[in-house]
Amino acid sequence: MNFLSASEDITTQDFHELEDFIEQSICEDKFIYETCKPLIGGGKRLRPMLFLLCTHAKNSYSNEKALPLAAALELIHTASLVHDDILDGAKKRRGVSTINSRYGAQISVLVGDYLFAKAFQLVAENNYGDKVAEVLSKLVKNLCVGEIMQDRSLFAVPTLGEYYTRINLKTAVFLSSCCKLGGIVSGMSQKEIDGLTFYGGSLGLAFQIVDDILDFFGDEKVTGKIVGGDLKSGVVTLPVIRALKVSKESEVLRGIITSREVTNSDIDKAVEIIKNTDAVEYCKMRATAHIDSALVNLPFGIKTSAGLALEKIADFVVDRTW
Amino acid sequence: MNFLSASEDITTQDFHELEDFIEQSICEDKFIYETCKPLIGGGKRLRPMLFLLCTHAKNSYSNEKALPLAAALELIHTASLVHDDILDGAKKRRGVSTINSRYGAQISVLVGDYLFAKAFQLVAENNYGDKVAEVLSKLVKNLCVGEIMQDRSLFAVPTLGEYYTRINLKTAVFLSSCCKLGGIVSGMSQKEIDGLTFYGGSLGLAFQIVDDILDFFGDEKVTGKIVGGDLKSGVVTLPVIRALKVSKESEVLRGIITSREVTNSDIDKAVEIIKNTDAVEYCKMRATAHIDSALVNLPFGIKTSAGLALEKIADFVVDRTW
Repeated sequence: MNFLSASEDITTQDFHELEDFIEQSICEDKFIYETCKPLIGGGKRLRPMLFLLCTHAKNSYSNEKALPLAAALELIHTASLVHDDILDGAKKRRGVSTINSRYGAQISVLVGDYLFAKAFQLVAENNYGDKVAEVLSKLVKNLCVGEIMQDRSLFAVPTLGEYYTRINLKTAVFLSSCCKLGGIVSGMSQKEIDGLTFYGGSLGLAFQIVDDILDFFGDEKVTGKIVGGDLKSGVVTLPVIRALKVSKESEVLRGIITSREVTNSDIDKAVEIIKNTDAVEYCKMRATAHIDSALVNLPFGIKTSAGLALEKIADFVVDRTW
Repeated sequence: MNFLSASEDITTQDFHELEDFIEQSICEDKFIYETCKPLIGGGKRLRPMLFLLCTHAKNSYSNEKALPLAAALELIHTASLVHDDILDGAKKRRGVSTINSRYGAQISVLVGDYLFAKAFQLVAENNYGDKVAEVLSKLVKNLCVGEIMQDRSLFAVPTLGEYYTRINLKTAVFLSSCCKLGGIVSGMSQKEIDGLTFYGGSLGLAFQIVDDILDFFGDEKVTGKIVGGDLKSGVVTLPVIRALKVSKESEVLRGIITSREVTNSDIDKAVEIIKNTDAVEYCKMRATAHIDSALVNLPFGIKTSAGLALEKIADFVVDRTW
C-alpha cells in the first residue's frame, strides 16, 4: 500500500511536494546528502502522512505550512533508524545497506545527530512555536528511554507489562505525537487533539506488534530486514512471550532466546516452535484490538474523508507485509 | 580556575543554582541519572557560564529565567562528549570512566540522544522561542559536520584552512552560540549580539588550539585525558601541522601520524619531535592572537564587570592546564 492512496485530502502533488521537501532538507551538506539519500528514499512515510492527514482532519491547514514539520518527523524517524542500526548490527535497512555497514559507527552516530538537529532546525525556522518543539523533544526522549529499556533487558523474557511499556515508548508515542501535532497546528480543540493522540498511540502499539510478527514471518525481500533479527540481538517480543507460555517446546525456545550465539538453524527452530502455537493469531488479535480501540477514539466530528483515511491506515498497519 | 570567580555578576548562589538545575534536568529517568551524573559533575561549565555572563553583559536578565537555557547548553555539550567517546574509544573523560567503556556503544548512543532531546525540551518548555531553538539546532548541526569532516580525514595532514574550518565547526560555533544566546535573550541590539558572537567564536578557536596543545603536553591527572589521544585516533592538529613544516625530523613525524598502529613509544617520539620545534610557541601565539581579536570585538558599552569577566575567561582559555 501507498499511503498516498489513503486519502483524497492528500493529493499526488502534495505527496511529491513532501518528497521534494524531505530531499531538500538534507542537501545542505554533500556528504550527508549522499549518505542519507538511499535510506531516506525507501521509507513508507507513515509518520509524515499521519501528521498531514490529521492537519486536514477537521480544519483546513495549508500543505505548504505543514511540510517542514512533516519532513522533520521523517528526519527524526530516519535518525533513530540510523542510530538503531549501530545497535543491532543489521546490514540492511529499507532494502539498502545501512550507513553503519558502509561507514562504521562513528559516521552513523554523527549522521543521526545531524538529522535530529536538522529536524529541530526545521521546526524552529518555520515558527511552529515552543509547544510543537516540546512534543518533538519529548518523543525523542521517550524513544531513547524505550530503546535503553530494550537494551538493558536483552536475552531476558519481559512480562506483558514490560513489553507494552517498551513498545509504547519506542513506537507508539512517536505515532501518537504525529497525530497530536496535526491537531495542534491545525487548531483543533484539546478534546479532539486527545482523540487523535489516542488513535495514534493505539495504532503504534498495533504497528509494533505486527513488526514483531514480521521479524519472524516476513519476507526479507519485502521487509528489507533479515528474518529473526530481533532474536539474534536478544530482543524478546510478543510472539515469543506467547509461545513460551503455550508451547510444549517452550524450554527449547527459552534456550534459544537466552543464548548469545544464535545460529540460522536456531532461528529456523524458533520460527517452527512459534508456528506450532497460536502465537501469530494471538498477536494479530491483540493488534486488531488496538486498532479497534484506535478507531473508537477518533474524535467526533472530523471529516468523513479524514476518518476513512485514518481507517485505511489502521487496516494497513494490521495487514501489512512490510 | 573556577569560572565562578570570573565575575561579580555571577554569585556563588547563582552557580549553585546552575549546578542544581543541571542535576535536576537529568533525574527524570533513574538509569540516565546514574549513568550521566559522574560525567556531568566534572565539567568546567564554560558554555553555560559564557551564556550567563552575556545575559548580564548589558541589560539585567533574571538568573531564574536564564538557568534552563544554561543547563541546555551544558547538556548539549555533554551529549556531544558522550557520542565523541564512542568515536575515539577513550577510556576516561573528565577524570571518570566513559559511558562507552562502562556500558558500550549502544547505551552511549542512546544516552547522548536523550541528552540532546532533553536540551531541546528545556528550551521549548521554558518558552525561549523559535529563534533560540534555531541557534541551538544549528550549533548541533555544525558540531556534527565538523566531527564528520574530522572523521573523514583521519591520518591525513590538513591544510591550515582545513584545520580552521574543522575547529570552527567543532568548537568555535558552540562557544559563539553561547554568547549570542546570552545577547538574544537579554534583548541586546543586533550589533551588540554580533560583537558577543565574534568574541565567542575567537575564544573558541583559541580554546581548541590550546586543547590540541594539551593533548600532547597536558598532565593526564589534570586534563583527565590520555596524552596523545588525538594522534592515536588519527586526528592531525595544529602542533603537528607546524612541526611537520619546521622540524628536521618531519618525515619521522609524518610516519607516526599516518600510521594506524601507534605505540606509546611512537607517541613519546612525536612529543619529542614537536618539543624540539617552535610548534608550542607558534600555537600559543596563534591562540593569543585569537584572544586579542575576541577582546577587541567585545561590544562597546557593556558593563565593566562583564567586560572584565569575559577578559578573565579569555586569559584562562590560553593559560589553562585542563
